[in-house]
Amino acid sequence: MIRIGLYGYGNLARGVDCAIKQNDDMELCAVFTRRSPESVKTVTGGVPVYHTNEILVHKDEIDVLVMCGGSATDLPVQTPEMAQYFNVVDSFDTHKNIPEHFANVDAAARKSGKVGIISVGWDPGMFSLNRLYSGCILRDGKDYTFWGKGVSQGHSDAIRRIEGVVDAKQYTVPVESSLDAVRRGEQPELSARQKHTRECFVVAEEGADKARIEHEIVTMKNYFDEYDTTVHFISLEELRRDHAGIPHGGFVIRSGKTGKDLENSHVIEYSLKLDSNPEFTASVIVAYVRAAYRMSSEGMCGCKTVFDIPPAYLSDKTSYELISTLL
Amino acid sequence: MIRIGLYGYGNLARGVDCAIKQNDDMELCAVFTRRSPESVKTVTGGVPVYHTNEILVHKDEIDVLVMCGGSATDLPVQTPEMAQYFNVVDSFDTHKNIPEHFANVDAAARKSGKVGIISVGWDPGMFSLNRLYSGCILRDGKDYTFWGKGVSQGHSDAIRRIEGVVDAKQYTVPVESSLDAVRRGEQPELSARQKHTRECFVVAEEGADKARIEHEIVTMKNYFDEYDTTVHFISLEELRRDHAGIPHGGFVIRSGKTGKDLENSHVIEYSLKLDSNPEFTASVIVAYVRAAYRMSSEGMCGCKTVFDIPPAYLSDKTSYELISTLL
Repeated sequence: MIRIGLYGYGNLARGVDCAIKQNDDMELCAVFTRRSPESVKTVTGGVPVYHTNEILVHKDEIDVLVMCGGSATDLPVQTPEMAQYFNVVDSFDTHKNIPEHFANVDAAARKSGKVGIISVGWDPGMFSLNRLYSGCILRDGKDYTFWGKGVSQGHSDAIRRIEGVVDAKQYTVPVESSLDAVRRGEQPELSARQKHTRECFVVAEEGADKARIEHEIVTMKNYFDEYDTTVHFISLEELRRDHAGIPHGGFVIRSGKTGKDLENSHVIEYSLKLDSNPEFTASVIVAYVRAAYRMSSEGMCGCKTVFDIPPAYLSDKTSYELISTLL
Repeated sequence: MIRIGLYGYGNLARGVDCAIKQNDDMELCAVFTRRSPESVKTVTGGVPVYHTNEILVHKDEIDVLVMCGGSATDLPVQTPEMAQYFNVVDSFDTHKNIPEHFANVDAAARKSGKVGIISVGWDPGMFSLNRLYSGCILRDGKDYTFWGKGVSQGHSDAIRRIEGVVDAKQYTVPVESSLDAVRRGEQPELSARQKHTRECFVVAEEGADKARIEHEIVTMKNYFDEYDTTVHFISLEELRRDHAGIPHGGFVIRSGKTGKDLENSHVIEYSLKLDSNPEFTASVIVAYVRAAYRMSSEGMCGCKTVFDIPPAYLSDKTSYELISTLL
């Protein structure tokens, strides 16, 4: 059994908690929280919750520690710190800071002889893998990543910070006609506006100036100004009833040419349609927990990404089983 | 530069010849044929063609030998034989015999200290990888592989063997309504007939009994009897004009559930739309040639499949470049 610990217990950790139950060779052994441990109720129950201050006491009870904090301030500090003592897996997703995060985790994990797998999930994660594989196969080509339809937490938060807004949910939606052009192998140049639209469902305070709120949303720099944005004002009841989920998904499409005169065209498409973004991300993480455990058992150490890991390491099946059933 | 040799020079080898030109770190150094070398004209030209009898003379001029024979009788003998002397990559695609082929190549390659990568292409190959990744992520789920629309060489050949048939082309076509049900996450049980239809374009001899030919096709055991098959009789000119290409493609779709009560549903879909089946297969092979070269350079040996190979080994980019541009 692979003994797993969770560092932090929010939406993602809840997903990991459930995903571990779907894998017979794993068990959740401990949850560590910065809150008061008594206040944390786990989804599947029956697992001890400790304060993070105590984590080193439990060092030998954990094979892999899953880092469940946020990418903005938690993981950049916590993952390298914990890699000094544990095999770790995180879902660090601030794309531009990945090289720096990699270097920090690598230094800590090499020193401790542990394995740290970073940026696991679907983007970064499965989408990155598909960009890599497709780009290596179709050399003369172009790839496109579309996100959605799905909830963007960052954009929803940005709307909530506007005066007069009680609550809000923002969906990122790929532009169908652009998707179709890419699928036809046309390799268009697409602006931000041509790739995605943004759809906002907003609950305003009673008597709030809705025209002003809408204007502040659609003109918001970096978040909305480069997109076609639609704003729907709805009631709190409607928001809770119709927009409670955290769906997401998207598409990685590469088209490219082959042949003596590049006369033949090919399209590779990978897509995800997810009812729950955190639960899917958690399911990817749990597969890579197995890889971290196996790589560590074989004496490897240092920081790894999805690019470095042989696909067979994600599976609980033997090489013979994989070859005879899936190849 | 990775120095590549081709063993055999048919459709697949022609594709590899072209694909090497799309990779700056590779060069085609020699072609080996069982035919008379003077009779072989390569697509891109300027490369020596030798008889296979002479291949060992050129042992030190080749880093990776791409095996371009057929899976029925060529590769089962040739790949293990050549793995005694060369790093080899093949596209062996008789799924049920892969474990035996793996064992034979592994024994030879371990003895010689070379690397042999087998069953590279899209199915087996990229489709297998997607079945593996998706199955490790969505544990409670079901996956489906659909092929087409594309030309099945085996089925086209079977029709050509019928008395009175001059030439023929058979397309395998996925059933759209079944694809849609799978995409909705319904996890239906699908018979062969419910997954694919077969469409045949047949040129009959003048005066041949078309009704008899059609009957022989649609009732042919193992090939057509379990499918809905349509037969179109056309002229040789039409066949040459409208059905000269070798397009193919298909879909690997897995749907699965997550959450405490498996209340959330997810769909992962990977699809290919290919103008040229052999050229795309060749492009995948060439990426794995790079992996074979690098694994061998690092001292690894034995038989490998796409499941065993870290994705980064397919790329000519450094780890830092991959992390900062694709992750």
